[in-house]
Amino acid sequence: MTDTTSISLDDAFALSVSVLVSNGYSADHANAIAKVVCAGQRDECHSHGLYRLLGCVRTIQMGKVDGTAVPEIIDHAAGIVRADARNGYSLLAFDAARGMLVDKARKSGIAALAINHCYHFSALWPEVEALAEDGVVAIAMTPSHNWVAPFGGRKPVFGTNPLAFAWPRPEGHPYVFDFATSTVARGEIELHRGAGKAIPADWAVDADGAPTSSAEAALAGAMTVFGGYKGSALSTMIELLAGPLIGDLSSMESNAHDNGAGVAPYHGELLLAFDPTAFTGSSAAAHAQRAEVIFDAIVDQGARLPSQRRYAARARSLSRGMMDIPSALLAEIRALVKS
Amino acid sequence: MTDTTSISLDDAFALSVSVLVSNGYSADHANAIAKVVCAGQRDECHSHGLYRLLGCVRTIQMGKVDGTAVPEIIDHAAGIVRADARNGYSLLAFDAARGMLVDKARKSGIAALAINHCYHFSALWPEVEALAEDGVVAIAMTPSHNWVAPFGGRKPVFGTNPLAFAWPRPEGHPYVFDFATSTVARGEIELHRGAGKAIPADWAVDADGAPTSSAEAALAGAMTVFGGYKGSALSTMIELLAGPLIGDLSSMESNAHDNGAGVAPYHGELLLAFDPTAFTGSSAAAHAQRAEVIFDAIVDQGARLPSQRRYAARARSLSRGMMDIPSALLAEIRALVKS
Repeated sequence: MTDTTSISLDDAFALSVSVLVSNGYSADHANAIAKVVCAGQRDECHSHGLYRLLGCVRTIQMGKVDGTAVPEIIDHAAGIVRADARNGYSLLAFDAARGMLVDKARKSGIAALAINHCYHFSALWPEVEALAEDGVVAIAMTPSHNWVAPFGGRKPVFGTNPLAFAWPRPEGHPYVFDFATSTVARGEIELHRGAGKAIPADWAVDADGAPTSSAEAALAGAMTVFGGYKGSALSTMIELLAGPLIGDLSSMESNAHDNGAGVAPYHGELLLAFDPTAFTGSSAAAHAQRAEVIFDAIVDQGARLPSQRRYAARARSLSRGMMDIPSALLAEIRALVKS
Repeated sequence: MTDTTSISLDDAFALSVSVLVSNGYSADHANAIAKVVCAGQRDECHSHGLYRLLGCVRTIQMGKVDGTAVPEIIDHAAGIVRADARNGYSLLAFDAARGMLVDKARKSGIAALAINHCYHFSALWPEVEALAEDGVVAIAMTPSHNWVAPFGGRKPVFGTNPLAFAWPRPEGHPYVFDFATSTVARGEIELHRGAGKAIPADWAVDADGAPTSSAEAALAGAMTVFGGYKGSALSTMIELLAGPLIGDLSSMESNAHDNGAGVAPYHGELLLAFDPTAFTGSSAAAHAQRAEVIFDAIVDQGARLPSQRRYAARARSLSRGMMDIPSALLAEIRALVKS
């Protein structure tokens, strides 16, 4: 049992900002990053929670990320917003471009946001969830570093290449999923290494291409794709759309750019937004009710919606005003605050 | 070993048109359908080859499809083309709307084509491949009938909900995939039933929710999703985007509309087109070369691109000018021609 400490949501946010600002991030970047890592911790997504502050500090210490970059938002075409993150983290660029993306989706029906030249570490669900709160259906995807072998191969080509989706619902939280196209998220293997725990043999292969239960060997080898050749195809699609299509780096190129530093991937991100009202006008609300019938048919037979566990964790955290964090990790994070 | 007959590509096309026209399809519909089923047979995709003519005839005989419907193409928004198939098959609507979709993608960067009120039986790769030949990156998806249980459940909610993707390449065929989000395509189970063969136990559950190796019991029960909870999430996304978003039927609603007739699903289809030049201008060609590095990294380690086997089959068929079809199936198809 890991020893955990409870920390208030406000204290966690203030601590996160303090860690980031004292290590060279601007207040704007610190706020954008703190908002997302605290949301992850609040929702008990530990691999995308406060743990990620360690990587943010390491990445700026290695001289890789520009902690004070001001993203440039470009009205590129009727259906395209470009956000040049200028070597900063992606999150501030997303926040700055979100309004224009939603506006374009409302006018054109569908629009894309291409975030370029960004460092990236964050889960995608906070972004698609935010867009769903604006009333649009959203998809997000990114490459990462090439950690994942294609189906039928053993050398890493793809990133963990997450795909996230959000659908606004008439009441309550949107339907949201956010999954890595690798069998598991990279962060899961890192957490197993940190805890000294073995991993299931189907998560990864070692550097020689043999299945391994060692998290260390997995991190030095290649992770597997989920779902066999279909997951491999989906990962390829993400690699292409959030890479060459938007003029940004592939996972292999991101890793080459990293050049052994072992910090956050540097690449692009693609988000798509669809406005239901632009598609079906005044009947959009009736069609949204038809979507509820689909959700009911899933949960009424005891299956789950992908966001259910996270929303339940959120409700617990919000009702307590507190969230739990491993005590050793909290101490490590507190030690990062420079006075 | 199935007894097969070789038939020339031209004869197969003429036979297909003859079957369709003599059973009540207009020449326009017959040509659009024949083009696609012959392409499937040519590429040795037997479950989407000439076999599908049987379903086309059954569907019109049951009074379900309008074989002479003239699709209406609507310039709906800067990023949306709507094609009302008016109860005809989807393929003629796609052919009629293709040009407007590509034009909108070139102007806006990204555009959607919503095909509504269509009967649908066809593979999606012919459509995304055609769009890639026009120079755009393409995605296509549809629901079907609710044949597939969500992960963690056992009652059918989703269709086989295929996802197809095409990426134009500087030389040769585009990169294309087209997969069902069920573990296998429905047509595979139908072919096993037809051949009296058992199916693997992870393809489906019977009507009581137990795994089954009987194709018959599988068709009366529920198919499984590929890739566990991730495949289930992806299938949900397709159900929502190609259903309520575009104001058309879900797989459950399509099945209710079928009302036991056992004919082709009736629903909508969503296609997306992205113009690389709209995203990256004059550097699009250089970025396309960077995509080639990704493909090389896959095939150079002995893994495959999803379209490789199909393109090889196509090359064989084209060089012979002939393709193979099971003799019993060919006889059954020839018997459908009404004089």
